[in-house]
Amino acid sequence: LALVLYDLDSADGRPLSPFGWRVRLALAHKGLAPDEVVRVKFTEKDKIAFAQSTTTPVLVDGDAVVADSWRIACHLEDAYPDRPSLFGGDAARALARYVNNWAGLELTPAVAGFILPEMAELACVEDRDYLRRTREPRFGPFEKLAESRSGRLDAFRASLGPLRLSVRQNGWLHGALPGFADYAAFGAFHWARLVAPSFDLLAADDPLYAWRDKVCDLHDGMARRSLAA
Amino acid sequence: LALVLYDLDSADGRPLSPFGWRVRLALAHKGLAPDEVVRVKFTEKDKIAFAQSTTTPVLVDGDAVVADSWRIACHLEDAYPDRPSLFGGDAARALARYVNNWAGLELTPAVAGFILPEMAELACVEDRDYLRRTREPRFGPFEKLAESRSGRLDAFRASLGPLRLSVRQNGWLHGALPGFADYAAFGAFHWARLVAPSFDLLAADDPLYAWRDKVCDLHDGMARRSLAA
Repeated sequence: LALVLYDLDSADGRPLSPFGWRVRLALAHKGLAPDEVVRVKFTEKDKIAFAQSTTTPVLVDGDAVVADSWRIACHLEDAYPDRPSLFGGDAARALARYVNNWAGLELTPAVAGFILPEMAELACVEDRDYLRRTREPRFGPFEKLAESRSGRLDAFRASLGPLRLSVRQNGWLHGALPGFADYAAFGAFHWARLVAPSFDLLAADDPLYAWRDKVCDLHDGMARRSLAA
Repeated sequence: LALVLYDLDSADGRPLSPFGWRVRLALAHKGLAPDEVVRVKFTEKDKIAFAQSTTTPVLVDGDAVVADSWRIACHLEDAYPDRPSLFGGDAARALARYVNNWAGLELTPAVAGFILPEMAELACVEDRDYLRRTREPRFGPFEKLAESRSGRLDAFRASLGPLRLSVRQNGWLHGALPGFADYAAFGAFHWARLVAPSFDLLAADDPLYAWRDKVCDLHDGMARRSLAA
């Protein structure tokens, strides 16, 4: 098998990792699809120990073993230079990394603060205690998160101002066409939509709502299919 | 005169606009220098009315009249394509615009909240009432800003995490070499340093402190010279 993706397992088998979605879209952007997807529970660190990683996603591409969604994107860009570019040059790669840093340090934790209660219900049974034990010290008790959620929503939406403005200016964060910067941010939004479908993280008239839909339609509607599943 | 920069005037004649600094560095990056700098007070909107703008910077480049630091950077990139690139391609331009959006919507207002009291003292005498009247509705009374400043500093520094990480990863925000994305962010930090030299916006051991110094050294120490002036 040439291309094996190790991604987070969930109770119903749907892909529920924001970082896994980045890699799934990056692969599709390059015209690639994994030959096999290995589902890994939070509590199955042994399955990815060979990659010197404790977190999914991990990609095995022939002899290359790559952990971390950013490093996987760089691997795909460098290993498949003749396929459509994820970055569009060195400066764009550095700036996509800035977006990636923002998505990892700010966006995804903020989204987690909204949907961790639902995430705990959708995680594999074996992972539910693990999720609470590892997340509650940082985010607080899941029950309180659910209670305080609506009060935090306006500030969260306001914090998306730079992303919203870019999408309005250019159509995509990456510019006139989508790129890895879009996928890095999209992963967090799509995660929320999959995990908490009745919670409106984005308002329907938000340009980011339409942008999220546009990403869902990319690559033959790859992300959209996961919504119906 | 081929190249005329309209930039904010100050009581002691030093350039004290974060957006003016973006343009000064962008010009130097292209190997250009203004033939003339026209100093414009906040209350001298008539001086830039010809550019259909109410704010500096404005650049006149031969027949081209361009207002707004982002649009000026795009003008320079397109009018001088054989000079060193400010962006590094279309995707990098779109992503630099995201940084520009963040710097304009988040960073610069946050910095303003720290240094507006000192800024009011350094503005031209004619501008001081104007500055209070236009800024206090958004930021609150300048006296209160000065009082609450230290209490806001930790949260501000924490909000710089994505920028800090990028600078640690790549050396510059733009990548291995500096670009307009660096200048867009630097303008706000340099503004604070010029206006409130005794206020430590950045801790001395912050990688962003060293990065700010590196930008000061670019283009024959252009920004550094303004510190000594």
